[in-house]
Amino acid sequence: MTRLFERAVVAGVGLIGGSLALAARRAGLIGEVVGFGRTRENLDVALKRGLVDRVSQDPAEAAQGADFALLAVPVGALAPVARALAPSLAPAAVVSDVGSVKTQVVREVSAALPAGLRFVGAHPIAGTEDSGAVAADGNLFRGTRCIVTPVAGTDAGALDKVEALWRGVGAQVERLSPERHDEVFAWVSHVPHMIAYALMHAAPADTHPYAGPSFRDVTRVAGSGVEMWRDIVAANAAPIGAGLDAVMERLASLREAIRRGDRDAAATIFRAAREARRRLESGK
Amino acid sequence: MTRLFERAVVAGVGLIGGSLALAARRAGLIGEVVGFGRTRENLDVALKRGLVDRVSQDPAEAAQGADFALLAVPVGALAPVARALAPSLAPAAVVSDVGSVKTQVVREVSAALPAGLRFVGAHPIAGTEDSGAVAADGNLFRGTRCIVTPVAGTDAGALDKVEALWRGVGAQVERLSPERHDEVFAWVSHVPHMIAYALMHAAPADTHPYAGPSFRDVTRVAGSGVEMWRDIVAANAAPIGAGLDAVMERLASLREAIRRGDRDAAATIFRAAREARRRLESGK
Repeated sequence: MTRLFERAVVAGVGLIGGSLALAARRAGLIGEVVGFGRTRENLDVALKRGLVDRVSQDPAEAAQGADFALLAVPVGALAPVARALAPSLAPAAVVSDVGSVKTQVVREVSAALPAGLRFVGAHPIAGTEDSGAVAADGNLFRGTRCIVTPVAGTDAGALDKVEALWRGVGAQVERLSPERHDEVFAWVSHVPHMIAYALMHAAPADTHPYAGPSFRDVTRVAGSGVEMWRDIVAANAAPIGAGLDAVMERLASLREAIRRGDRDAAATIFRAAREARRRLESGK
Repeated sequence: MTRLFERAVVAGVGLIGGSLALAARRAGLIGEVVGFGRTRENLDVALKRGLVDRVSQDPAEAAQGADFALLAVPVGALAPVARALAPSLAPAAVVSDVGSVKTQVVREVSAALPAGLRFVGAHPIAGTEDSGAVAADGNLFRGTRCIVTPVAGTDAGALDKVEALWRGVGAQVERLSPERHDEVFAWVSHVPHMIAYALMHAAPADTHPYAGPSFRDVTRVAGSGVEMWRDIVAANAAPIGAGLDAVMERLASLREAIRRGDRDAAATIFRAAREARRRLESGK
Protein backbone atom coordinates (compact mmCIF):
# COMPACT_ATOMS: atom_id res chain seq x y z
CA MET A 1 0.00 0.00 0.00
CA THR A 2 1.08 3.59 -0.53
CA ARG A 3 2.74 5.18 2.44
CA LEU A 4 0.55 8.03 3.67
CA PHE A 5 2.72 9.46 6.43
CA GLU A 6 6.44 9.25 7.20
CA ARG A 7 6.19 9.69 10.94
CA ALA A 8 3.16 9.69 13.20
CA VAL A 9 2.73 10.56 16.83
CA VAL A 10 -0.08 8.62 18.47
CA ALA A 11 -1.25 10.33 21.64
CA GLY A 12 -2.87 7.72 23.86
CA VAL A 13 -1.63 4.24 22.97
CA GLY A 14 -4.72 2.50 24.28
CA LEU A 15 -7.12 0.11 22.59
CA ILE A 16 -7.91 2.42 19.67
CA GLY A 17 -4.60 4.31 19.35
CA GLY A 18 -2.51 1.19 19.83
CA SER A 19 -4.57 -0.88 17.40
CA LEU A 20 -4.40 1.82 14.72
CA ALA A 21 -0.62 2.20 15.21
CA LEU A 22 -0.06 -1.52 14.85
CA ALA A 23 -2.40 -1.98 11.89
CA ALA A 24 -1.06 1.06 10.00
CA ARG A 25 2.59 0.06 10.49
CA ARG A 26 1.91 -3.51 9.40
CA ALA A 27 0.12 -2.24 6.30
CA GLY A 28 2.98 0.14 5.47
CA LEU A 29 0.69 3.17 5.68
CA ILE A 30 2.93 4.94 8.20
CA GLY A 31 6.74 4.79 8.30
CA GLU A 32 7.43 5.30 11.97
CA VAL A 33 5.05 5.65 14.92
CA VAL A 34 5.96 7.36 18.18
CA GLY A 35 3.71 6.64 21.13
CA PHE A 36 2.95 9.52 23.48
CA GLY A 37 1.16 9.18 26.81
CA ARG A 38 1.05 10.01 30.48
CA THR A 39 1.59 6.53 31.87
CA ARG A 40 5.06 5.03 31.55
CA GLU A 41 3.76 1.55 32.27
CA ASN A 42 1.30 1.60 29.35
CA LEU A 43 3.95 3.01 26.99
CA ASP A 44 6.30 0.20 28.00
CA VAL A 45 3.60 -2.35 27.15
CA ALA A 46 3.06 -0.62 23.78
CA LEU A 47 6.77 -0.78 23.02
CA LYS A 48 7.16 -4.34 24.20
CA ARG A 49 4.16 -5.46 22.11
CA GLY A 50 5.61 -3.69 19.06
CA LEU A 51 2.60 -1.41 18.61
CA VAL A 52 4.91 1.60 18.15
CA ASP A 53 8.58 2.17 17.23
CA ARG A 54 9.40 4.60 20.03
CA VAL A 55 7.67 6.12 23.03
CA SER A 56 7.93 9.38 24.94
CA GLN A 57 6.18 11.14 27.79
CA ASP A 58 7.42 14.50 26.50
CA PRO A 59 5.10 16.12 23.93
CA ALA A 60 7.87 18.04 22.14
CA GLU A 61 10.05 14.97 21.79
CA ALA A 62 7.13 12.74 20.77
CA ALA A 63 5.80 15.12 18.10
CA GLN A 64 9.17 16.22 16.69
CA GLY A 65 8.97 16.22 12.89
CA ALA A 66 5.78 14.11 12.70
CA ASP A 67 3.63 14.71 9.61
CA PHE A 68 0.64 13.05 11.31
CA ALA A 69 -0.76 13.25 14.83
CA LEU A 70 -3.50 10.92 15.97
CA LEU A 71 -5.24 12.10 19.11
CA ALA A 72 -6.58 8.97 20.82
CA VAL A 73 -7.10 10.38 24.32
CA PRO A 74 -10.39 10.98 26.20
CA VAL A 75 -12.61 13.66 24.65
CA GLY A 76 -11.90 16.19 27.40
CA ALA A 77 -8.13 15.92 26.79
CA LEU A 78 -8.18 16.30 22.98
CA ALA A 79 -7.72 20.08 22.74
CA PRO A 80 -5.03 20.33 25.46
CA VAL A 81 -3.06 17.46 23.89
CA ALA A 82 -3.40 19.02 20.41
CA ARG A 83 -2.04 22.26 21.89
CA ALA A 84 0.90 20.46 23.50
CA LEU A 85 1.93 18.57 20.37
CA ALA A 86 1.33 21.29 17.75
CA PRO A 87 4.57 23.34 18.09
CA SER A 88 6.78 20.32 17.30
CA LEU A 89 4.82 18.86 14.38
CA ALA A 90 6.10 19.16 10.79
CA PRO A 91 4.69 22.07 8.71
CA ALA A 92 1.27 21.26 7.25
CA ALA A 93 1.03 18.11 9.37
CA VAL A 94 -2.30 16.32 9.40
CA VAL A 95 -4.02 16.00 12.80
CA SER A 96 -6.94 13.67 13.44
CA ASP A 97 -8.76 12.21 16.43
CA VAL A 98 -10.92 9.23 17.39
CA GLY A 99 -13.33 10.98 19.75
CA SER A 100 -16.89 9.72 20.03
CA VAL A 101 -18.36 13.23 19.95
CA LYS A 102 -17.58 15.58 17.12
CA THR A 103 -19.23 19.03 17.03
CA GLN A 104 -17.45 20.41 20.08
CA VAL A 105 -14.26 18.45 19.38
CA VAL A 106 -13.90 19.67 15.80
CA ARG A 107 -14.45 23.24 16.94
CA GLU A 108 -12.11 23.09 19.93
CA VAL A 109 -9.27 21.09 18.38
CA SER A 110 -9.32 23.24 15.23
CA ALA A 111 -9.09 26.34 17.43
CA ALA A 112 -6.24 24.80 19.44
CA LEU A 113 -4.07 24.26 16.36
CA PRO A 114 -1.99 27.02 14.75
CA ALA A 115 -2.73 27.95 11.14
CA GLY A 116 -1.11 25.55 8.69
CA LEU A 117 -1.86 22.34 10.57
CA ARG A 118 -4.73 20.41 8.98
CA PHE A 119 -7.36 18.84 11.25
CA VAL A 120 -9.84 16.11 10.22
CA GLY A 121 -12.32 14.78 12.77
CA ALA A 122 -12.92 11.03 12.78
CA HIS A 123 -14.69 8.41 14.91
CA PRO A 124 -13.90 4.75 14.35
CA ILE A 125 -16.84 2.62 15.51
CA ALA A 126 -14.86 -0.05 17.26
CA GLY A 127 -13.92 -1.00 20.75
CA THR A 128 -14.50 -3.61 23.38
CA GLU A 129 -14.81 -3.63 27.16
CA ASP A 130 -11.01 -3.87 27.31
CA SER A 131 -8.67 -0.93 27.31
CA GLY A 132 -4.98 -0.04 27.26
CA ALA A 133 -2.06 -1.07 25.07
CA VAL A 134 -2.44 -4.58 26.41
CA ALA A 135 -5.79 -4.89 24.57
CA ALA A 136 -4.63 -3.44 21.21
CA ASP A 137 -5.29 -5.64 18.20
CA GLY A 138 -4.04 -5.07 14.66
CA ASN A 139 -7.28 -6.47 13.23
CA LEU A 140 -9.62 -4.40 15.41
CA PHE A 141 -10.88 -2.24 12.54
CA ARG A 142 -11.49 -4.95 9.93
CA GLY A 143 -15.11 -4.82 8.85
CA THR A 144 -15.95 -1.85 11.09
CA ARG A 145 -17.11 1.61 10.13
CA CYS A 146 -15.23 4.88 10.57
CA ILE A 147 -17.16 8.16 10.46
CA VAL A 148 -15.20 11.19 9.27
CA THR A 149 -16.67 14.63 9.88
CA PRO A 150 -15.28 17.23 7.47
CA VAL A 151 -16.46 20.83 7.75
CA ALA A 152 -16.27 23.83 5.41
CA GLY A 153 -12.63 24.59 6.24
CA THR A 154 -11.33 20.99 6.10
CA ASP A 155 -8.31 20.52 3.82
CA ALA A 156 -9.19 18.15 0.97
CA GLY A 157 -5.76 16.53 0.86
CA ALA A 158 -5.78 15.87 4.60
CA LEU A 159 -9.30 14.41 4.37
CA ASP A 160 -8.16 12.06 1.59
CA LYS A 161 -5.20 10.86 3.65
CA VAL A 162 -7.23 10.25 6.82
CA GLU A 163 -9.87 8.35 4.84
CA ALA A 164 -7.17 6.30 3.09
CA LEU A 165 -5.63 5.48 6.47
CA TRP A 166 -8.88 4.08 7.89
CA ARG A 167 -9.68 2.21 4.68
CA GLY A 168 -6.16 0.83 4.73
CA VAL A 169 -6.72 -0.80 8.13
CA GLY A 170 -9.97 -2.38 7.01
CA ALA A 171 -12.67 0.12 7.95
CA GLN A 172 -15.49 1.33 5.74
CA VAL A 173 -15.37 5.14 5.72
CA GLU A 174 -18.48 7.30 5.81
CA ARG A 175 -18.84 11.08 5.98
CA LEU A 176 -21.29 12.86 8.25
CA SER A 177 -21.44 16.45 9.44
CA PRO A 178 -20.28 16.80 13.07
CA GLU A 179 -23.81 17.80 14.08
CA ARG A 180 -25.44 14.80 12.40
CA HIS A 181 -22.79 12.49 13.83
CA ASP A 182 -23.54 13.71 17.34
CA GLU A 183 -27.29 13.32 16.91
CA VAL A 184 -26.92 9.77 15.55
CA PHE A 185 -24.46 8.66 18.22
CA ALA A 186 -26.47 10.22 21.01
CA TRP A 187 -29.16 7.72 19.98
CA VAL A 188 -27.13 4.61 19.24
CA SER A 189 -24.49 4.96 21.94
CA HIS A 190 -24.74 7.81 24.44
CA VAL A 191 -28.40 7.42 25.43
CA PRO A 192 -28.09 3.61 25.75
CA HIS A 193 -25.17 4.15 28.13
CA MET A 194 -27.23 6.59 30.23
CA ILE A 195 -30.06 4.03 30.37
CA ALA A 196 -27.71 1.27 31.47
CA TYR A 197 -26.24 3.46 34.20
CA ALA A 198 -29.72 4.51 35.36
CA LEU A 199 -31.09 0.96 35.59
CA MET A 200 -27.98 -0.34 37.33
CA HIS A 201 -28.15 2.57 39.78
CA ALA A 202 -31.86 2.11 40.49
CA ALA A 203 -32.09 -1.68 40.90
CA PRO A 204 -31.76 -2.65 44.60
CA ALA A 205 -28.58 -4.61 45.29
CA ASP A 206 -30.49 -7.53 46.83
CA THR A 207 -32.17 -8.22 43.47
CA HIS A 208 -28.87 -8.46 41.54
CA PRO A 209 -28.19 -12.11 42.45
CA TYR A 210 -31.31 -13.03 40.43
CA ALA A 211 -30.15 -11.19 37.31
CA GLY A 212 -30.56 -13.19 34.14
CA PRO A 213 -29.64 -12.41 30.53
CA SER A 214 -32.05 -9.48 30.09
CA PHE A 215 -30.75 -7.48 33.05
CA ARG A 216 -27.16 -8.37 32.16
CA ASP A 217 -27.57 -7.25 28.55
CA VAL A 218 -29.32 -3.99 29.33
CA THR A 219 -26.76 -3.04 32.00
CA ARG A 220 -23.58 -4.37 30.38
CA VAL A 221 -22.24 -0.97 29.31
CA ALA A 222 -22.79 0.41 32.83
CA GLY A 223 -19.34 -1.12 33.40
CA SER A 224 -17.83 1.55 31.10
CA GLY A 225 -15.29 4.12 32.26
CA VAL A 226 -16.63 7.00 34.34
CA GLU A 227 -14.20 9.70 33.17
CA MET A 228 -14.80 8.85 29.52
CA TRP A 229 -18.56 9.13 29.90
CA ARG A 230 -18.42 12.26 32.01
CA ASP A 231 -16.53 13.88 29.11
CA ILE A 232 -18.87 12.58 26.41
CA VAL A 233 -21.97 13.73 28.25
CA ALA A 234 -20.51 17.21 28.74
CA ALA A 235 -19.47 17.43 25.08
CA ASN A 236 -22.78 16.26 23.59
CA ALA A 237 -25.27 17.59 26.10
CA ALA A 238 -28.09 18.79 23.83
CA PRO A 239 -28.54 15.67 21.65
CA ILE A 240 -28.24 13.37 24.68
CA GLY A 241 -30.75 15.49 26.58
CA ALA A 242 -33.21 15.33 23.69
CA GLY A 243 -32.80 11.55 23.47
CA LEU A 244 -33.32 11.09 27.20
CA ASP A 245 -36.48 13.22 27.01
CA ALA A 246 -37.87 11.00 24.26
CA VAL A 247 -37.05 7.78 26.13
CA MET A 248 -38.58 9.12 29.35
CA GLU A 249 -41.70 10.04 27.42
CA ARG A 250 -42.03 6.43 26.18
CA LEU A 251 -41.38 5.06 29.67
CA ALA A 252 -44.01 7.41 31.09
CA SER A 253 -46.51 6.22 28.44
CA LEU A 254 -45.80 2.60 29.34
CA ARG A 255 -46.04 3.37 33.03
CA GLU A 256 -49.39 5.08 32.53
CA ALA A 257 -50.71 2.21 30.38
CA ILE A 258 -49.66 -0.27 33.07
CA ARG A 259 -51.29 1.82 35.81
CA ARG A 260 -54.55 2.04 33.85
CA GLY A 261 -54.40 -1.67 32.98
CA ASP A 262 -54.47 -0.69 29.31
CA ARG A 263 -53.02 -3.83 27.76
CA ASP A 264 -53.56 -2.61 24.20
CA ALA A 265 -51.61 0.63 24.68
CA ALA A 266 -48.65 -1.28 26.10
CA ALA A 267 -48.86 -3.92 23.36
CA THR A 268 -48.85 -1.22 20.65
CA ILE A 269 -45.50 0.09 21.91
CA PHE A 270 -44.11 -3.45 22.32
CA ARG A 271 -45.17 -4.39 18.79
CA ALA A 272 -43.66 -1.34 17.08
CA ALA A 273 -40.43 -1.76 19.08
CA ARG A 274 -40.24 -5.45 18.27
CA GLU A 275 -40.67 -4.83 14.56
CA ALA A 276 -37.93 -2.18 14.64
CA ARG A 277 -35.63 -4.54 16.56
CA ARG A 278 -36.24 -7.33 14.06
CA ARG A 279 -35.45 -4.99 11.16
CA LEU A 280 -32.24 -3.98 12.93
CA GLU A 281 -31.29 -7.62 13.45
CA SER A 282 -31.91 -8.53 9.84
CA GLY A 283 -29.89 -5.50 8.72
CA LYS A 284 -32.77 -3.92 6.79
CA MET B 1 -33.63 -41.51 39.99
CA THR B 2 -36.91 -42.07 41.78
CA ARG B 3 -39.99 -41.73 39.62
CA LEU B 4 -42.01 -38.76 40.86
CA PHE B 5 -45.06 -39.00 38.61
CA GLU B 6 -46.57 -41.79 36.54
CA ARG B 7 -48.22 -39.65 33.91
CA ALA B 8 -47.85 -35.93 33.23
CA VAL B 9 -49.74 -33.60 30.96
CA VAL B 10 -47.59 -30.73 29.72
CA ALA B 11 -49.74 -27.84 28.51
CA GLY B 12 -47.71 -25.82 26.06
CA VAL B 13 -44.90 -27.90 24.57
CA GLY B 14 -42.69 -24.90 23.81
CA LEU B 15 -39.14 -24.13 24.82
CA ILE B 16 -39.75 -24.52 28.56
CA GLY B 17 -42.51 -27.16 28.55
CA GLY B 18 -40.83 -29.22 25.85
CA SER B 19 -37.42 -29.07 27.48
CA LEU B 20 -38.81 -30.09 30.86
CA ALA B 21 -40.77 -32.99 29.30
CA LEU B 22 -37.68 -34.27 27.52
CA ALA B 23 -35.33 -33.85 30.48
CA ALA B 24 -37.74 -35.42 33.00
CA ARG B 25 -38.47 -38.44 30.78
CA ARG B 26 -34.79 -39.02 30.13
CA ALA B 27 -34.06 -38.83 33.84
CA GLY B 28 -36.87 -41.27 34.63
CA LEU B 29 -38.65 -38.71 36.80
CA ILE B 30 -41.94 -39.04 34.90
CA GLY B 31 -43.28 -42.24 33.36
CA GLU B 32 -45.33 -40.92 30.47
CA VAL B 33 -45.76 -37.36 29.18
CA VAL B 34 -48.74 -36.21 27.13
CA GLY B 35 -48.32 -32.95 25.26
CA PHE B 36 -51.32 -30.63 25.13
CA GLY B 37 -51.53 -27.50 22.99
CA ARG B 38 -53.54 -25.42 20.56
CA THR B 39 -51.27 -25.77 17.55
CA ARG B 40 -51.21 -29.13 15.78
CA GLU B 41 -48.00 -28.26 13.96
CA ASN B 42 -46.07 -27.61 17.17
CA LEU B 43 -47.44 -30.81 18.77
CA ASP B 44 -46.30 -32.76 15.72
CA VAL B 45 -42.80 -31.36 16.11
CA ALA B 46 -42.86 -32.29 19.81
CA LEU B 47 -43.87 -35.84 18.99
CA LYS B 48 -41.40 -36.20 16.14
CA ARG B 49 -38.58 -34.89 18.32
CA GLY B 50 -39.51 -37.34 21.09
CA LEU B 51 -40.16 -34.64 23.67
CA VAL B 52 -43.43 -36.32 24.67
CA ASP B 53 -44.99 -39.78 24.34
CA ARG B 54 -48.38 -38.68 23.06
CA VAL B 55 -50.10 -35.45 22.07
CA SER B 56 -53.65 -34.16 22.10
CA GLN B 57 -55.49 -30.94 21.38
CA ASP B 58 -58.35 -32.08 23.61
CA PRO B 59 -57.90 -31.13 27.28
CA ALA B 60 -59.97 -34.04 28.64
CA GLU B 61 -58.07 -36.59 26.58
CA ALA B 62 -54.69 -35.01 27.35
CA ALA B 63 -55.23 -34.80 31.11
CA GLN B 64 -56.93 -38.17 31.53
CA GLY B 65 -55.52 -39.91 34.61
CA ALA B 66 -52.43 -37.67 34.88
CA ASP B 67 -51.00 -37.28 38.38
CA PHE B 68 -49.07 -34.18 37.31
CA ALA B 69 -49.98 -31.19 35.14
CA LEU B 70 -47.34 -28.69 34.09
CA LEU B 71 -48.81 -25.42 32.84
CA ALA B 72 -46.25 -23.96 30.42
CA VAL B 73 -48.51 -21.53 28.57
CA PRO B 74 -48.44 -17.69 28.59
CA VAL B 75 -49.31 -16.13 31.94
CA GLY B 76 -52.72 -14.94 30.77
CA ALA B 77 -53.71 -18.49 29.76
CA LEU B 78 -52.65 -20.27 32.95
CA ALA B 79 -55.94 -20.14 34.85
CA PRO B 80 -58.17 -21.03 31.84
CA VAL B 81 -55.92 -23.98 30.95
CA ALA B 82 -55.86 -25.15 34.59
CA ARG B 83 -59.68 -25.03 34.55
CA ALA B 84 -59.84 -27.01 31.31
CA LEU B 85 -57.51 -29.80 32.45
CA ALA B 86 -58.66 -30.13 36.08
CA PRO B 87 -61.74 -32.35 35.65
CA SER B 88 -59.74 -35.14 33.97
CA LEU B 89 -56.70 -35.19 36.26
CA ALA B 90 -56.17 -38.02 38.76
CA PRO B 91 -57.35 -37.40 42.34
CA ALA B 92 -54.82 -35.32 44.36
CA ALA B 93 -52.81 -34.61 41.20
CA VAL B 94 -50.02 -32.07 41.51
CA VAL B 95 -50.33 -28.97 39.31
CA SER B 96 -47.47 -26.57 38.69
CA ASP B 97 -46.60 -23.77 36.28
CA VAL B 98 -43.58 -21.96 34.84
CA GLY B 99 -44.99 -18.43 34.71
CA SER B 100 -42.66 -15.48 35.18
CA VAL B 101 -45.06 -13.68 37.51
CA LYS B 102 -46.35 -15.36 40.63
CA THR B 103 -48.61 -13.39 43.00
CA GLN B 104 -51.57 -13.15 40.64
CA VAL B 105 -50.86 -16.55 39.07
CA VAL B 106 -50.75 -18.44 42.36
CA ARG B 107 -53.99 -16.79 43.45
CA GLU B 108 -55.84 -17.31 40.16
CA VAL B 109 -54.66 -20.84 39.36
CA SER B 110 -55.33 -22.01 42.92
CA ALA B 111 -58.84 -20.57 42.65
CA ALA B 112 -59.35 -22.27 39.27
CA LEU B 113 -58.61 -25.74 40.63
CA PRO B 114 -61.18 -27.84 42.50
CA ALA B 115 -60.37 -28.85 46.08
CA GLY B 116 -58.07 -31.86 46.23
CA LEU B 117 -55.73 -30.85 43.43
CA ARG B 118 -52.44 -29.53 44.76
CA PHE B 119 -50.91 -26.43 43.16
CA VAL B 120 -47.27 -25.30 43.50
CA GLY B 121 -46.09 -22.13 41.74
CA ALA B 122 -42.69 -22.25 40.08
CA HIS B 123 -40.56 -20.13 37.76
CA PRO B 124 -37.54 -21.72 36.09
CA ILE B 125 -35.02 -18.98 35.18
CA ALA B 126 -34.13 -20.26 31.76
CA GLY B 127 -34.93 -19.49 28.20
CA THR B 128 -33.44 -18.11 25.05
CA GLU B 129 -34.66 -15.95 22.19
CA ASP B 130 -35.96 -19.13 20.56
CA SER B 131 -39.34 -20.63 21.16
CA GLY B 132 -41.51 -23.61 20.31
CA ALA B 133 -40.96 -27.37 20.45
CA VAL B 134 -38.30 -26.98 17.78
CA ALA B 135 -36.12 -25.10 20.29
CA ALA B 136 -36.56 -27.51 23.23
CA ASP B 137 -33.36 -28.84 24.75
CA GLY B 138 -33.07 -31.59 27.36
CA ASN B 139 -30.10 -29.79 28.97
CA LEU B 140 -31.76 -26.36 29.14
CA PHE B 141 -32.09 -26.37 32.93
CA ARG B 142 -28.61 -27.62 33.86
CA GLY B 143 -26.95 -25.05 36.11
CA THR B 144 -29.97 -22.72 36.12
CA ARG B 145 -32.11 -21.62 39.02
CA CYS B 146 -35.78 -22.44 39.61
CA ILE B 147 -37.78 -20.29 42.02
CA VAL B 148 -40.68 -22.05 43.76
CA THR B 149 -43.26 -19.90 45.51
CA PRO B 150 -45.14 -21.85 48.21
CA VAL B 151 -47.86 -20.10 50.20
CA ALA B 152 -49.63 -20.93 53.48
CA GLY B 153 -51.96 -23.47 51.86
CA THR B 154 -49.36 -25.26 49.70
CA ASP B 155 -49.30 -29.05 50.18
CA ALA B 156 -45.92 -30.11 51.58
CA GLY B 157 -45.81 -33.37 49.61
CA ALA B 158 -46.59 -31.59 46.32
CA LEU B 159 -43.92 -28.97 47.07
CA ASP B 160 -41.35 -31.72 47.68
CA LYS B 161 -42.20 -33.41 44.39
CA VAL B 162 -42.05 -30.22 42.32
CA GLU B 163 -38.74 -29.28 43.89
CA ALA B 164 -37.38 -32.79 43.27
CA LEU B 165 -38.48 -32.55 39.64
CA TRP B 166 -36.56 -29.33 39.00
CA ARG B 167 -33.52 -30.55 40.90
CA GLY B 168 -33.69 -33.76 38.89
CA VAL B 169 -33.32 -31.87 35.61
CA GLY B 170 -30.32 -29.93 36.89
CA ALA B 171 -31.76 -26.74 38.38
CA GLN B 172 -30.93 -25.25 41.74
CA VAL B 173 -34.20 -24.69 43.61
CA GLU B 174 -34.87 -21.63 45.74
CA ARG B 175 -38.03 -20.62 47.62
CA LEU B 176 -39.41 -17.08 47.60
CA SER B 177 -42.85 -15.76 48.50
CA PRO B 178 -44.89 -14.88 45.39
CA GLU B 179 -44.74 -11.18 46.37
CA ARG B 180 -40.97 -11.16 46.82
CA HIS B 181 -40.54 -13.11 43.57
CA ASP B 182 -42.54 -10.50 41.68
CA GLU B 183 -40.64 -7.59 43.18
CA VAL B 184 -37.28 -9.18 42.35
CA PHE B 185 -38.23 -10.14 38.80
CA ALA B 186 -39.79 -6.78 38.11
CA TRP B 187 -36.28 -5.41 38.66
CA VAL B 188 -34.14 -8.04 36.97
CA SER B 189 -36.42 -8.89 34.05
CA HIS B 190 -39.66 -6.95 33.59
CA VAL B 191 -38.29 -3.40 33.94
CA PRO B 192 -35.28 -4.15 31.67
CA HIS B 193 -37.72 -5.36 29.02
CA MET B 194 -39.77 -2.16 29.31
CA ILE B 195 -36.57 -0.10 28.97
CA ALA B 196 -35.50 -2.02 25.87
CA TYR B 197 -38.92 -1.55 24.27
CA ALA B 198 -38.92 2.17 25.14
CA LEU B 199 -35.45 2.86 23.69
CA MET B 200 -36.17 0.86 20.56
CA HIS B 201 -39.45 2.71 20.12
CA ALA B 202 -37.92 6.15 20.67
CA ALA B 203 -34.76 5.90 18.55
CA PRO B 204 -35.39 7.29 15.03
CA ALA B 205 -35.16 4.59 12.36
CA ASP B 206 -32.52 6.48 10.39
CA THR B 207 -30.09 6.14 13.31
CA HIS B 208 -30.44 2.33 13.52
CA PRO B 209 -27.92 1.58 10.75
CA TYR B 210 -25.22 3.07 13.00
CA ALA B 211 -26.10 0.86 15.95
CA GLY B 212 -23.09 -0.70 17.62
CA PRO B 213 -22.80 -3.16 20.51
CA SER B 214 -24.21 -0.83 23.19
CA PHE B 215 -27.49 -0.15 21.36
CA ARG B 216 -27.77 -3.78 20.34
CA ASP B 217 -27.25 -5.05 23.88
CA VAL B 218 -29.64 -2.61 25.52
CA THR B 219 -32.39 -3.31 22.96
CA ARG B 220 -31.87 -7.05 22.44
CA VAL B 221 -34.90 -8.12 24.48
CA ALA B 222 -37.13 -5.69 22.58
CA GLY B 223 -37.35 -8.60 20.12
CA SER B 224 -39.36 -10.56 22.72
CA GLY B 225 -42.93 -11.71 22.18
CA VAL B 226 -45.63 -9.05 22.44
CA GLU B 227 -48.42 -11.24 23.84
CA MET B 228 -46.15 -12.70 26.51
CA TRP B 229 -45.09 -9.26 27.70
CA ARG B 230 -48.57 -7.80 27.53
CA ASP B 231 -49.62 -10.57 29.95
CA ILE B 232 -46.64 -10.14 32.27
CA VAL B 233 -47.12 -6.40 32.52
CA ALA B 234 -50.81 -6.80 33.33
CA ALA B 235 -50.07 -9.47 35.94
CA ASN B 236 -47.28 -7.60 37.75
CA ALA B 237 -48.37 -3.99 37.33
CA ALA B 238 -47.49 -2.53 40.74
CA PRO B 239 -43.87 -3.77 41.07
CA ILE B 240 -43.13 -2.89 37.42
CA GLY B 241 -44.65 0.55 37.88
CA ALA B 242 -42.54 1.18 40.98
CA GLY B 243 -39.41 0.07 39.14
CA LEU B 244 -40.16 2.30 36.15
CA ASP B 245 -40.70 5.25 38.49
CA ALA B 246 -37.29 4.70 40.08
CA VAL B 247 -35.54 4.37 36.70
CA MET B 248 -37.26 7.50 35.36
CA GLU B 249 -36.16 9.36 38.49
CA ARG B 250 -32.52 8.41 37.79
CA LEU B 251 -32.86 9.36 34.12
CA ALA B 252 -34.36 12.70 35.12
CA SER B 253 -31.45 13.31 37.52
CA LEU B 254 -28.96 12.53 34.75
CA ARG B 255 -30.87 14.70 32.32
CA GLU B 256 -30.86 17.60 34.75
CA ALA B 257 -27.13 17.16 35.52
CA ILE B 258 -26.40 17.19 31.77
CA ARG B 259 -28.54 20.29 31.27
CA ARG B 260 -26.78 22.12 34.07
CA GLY B 261 -23.37 20.96 32.86
CA ASP B 262 -22.84 19.35 36.28
CA ARG B 263 -20.17 16.80 35.42
CA ASP B 264 -19.72 15.70 39.02
CA ALA B 265 -23.39 14.83 39.56
CA ALA B 266 -23.40 12.68 36.42
CA ALA B 267 -20.09 11.06 37.34
CA THR B 268 -21.42 10.17 40.80
CA ILE B 269 -24.26 8.17 39.26
CA PHE B 270 -21.93 6.58 36.67
CA ARG B 271 -19.44 5.57 39.36
CA ALA B 272 -22.00 3.95 41.68
CA ALA B 273 -23.60 2.13 38.74
CA ARG B 274 -20.24 0.94 37.46
CA GLU B 275 -19.26 -0.44 40.87
CA ALA B 276 -22.58 -2.28 41.13
CA ARG B 277 -22.14 -3.67 37.61
CA ARG B 278 -18.64 -4.88 38.41
CA ARG B 279 -19.87 -6.60 41.57
CA LEU B 280 -22.60 -8.27 39.52
CA GLU B 281 -20.04 -9.45 36.94
CA SER B 282 -17.72 -10.85 39.58
CA GLY B 283 -20.65 -12.62 41.25
CA LYS B 284 -20.15 -10.87 44.60
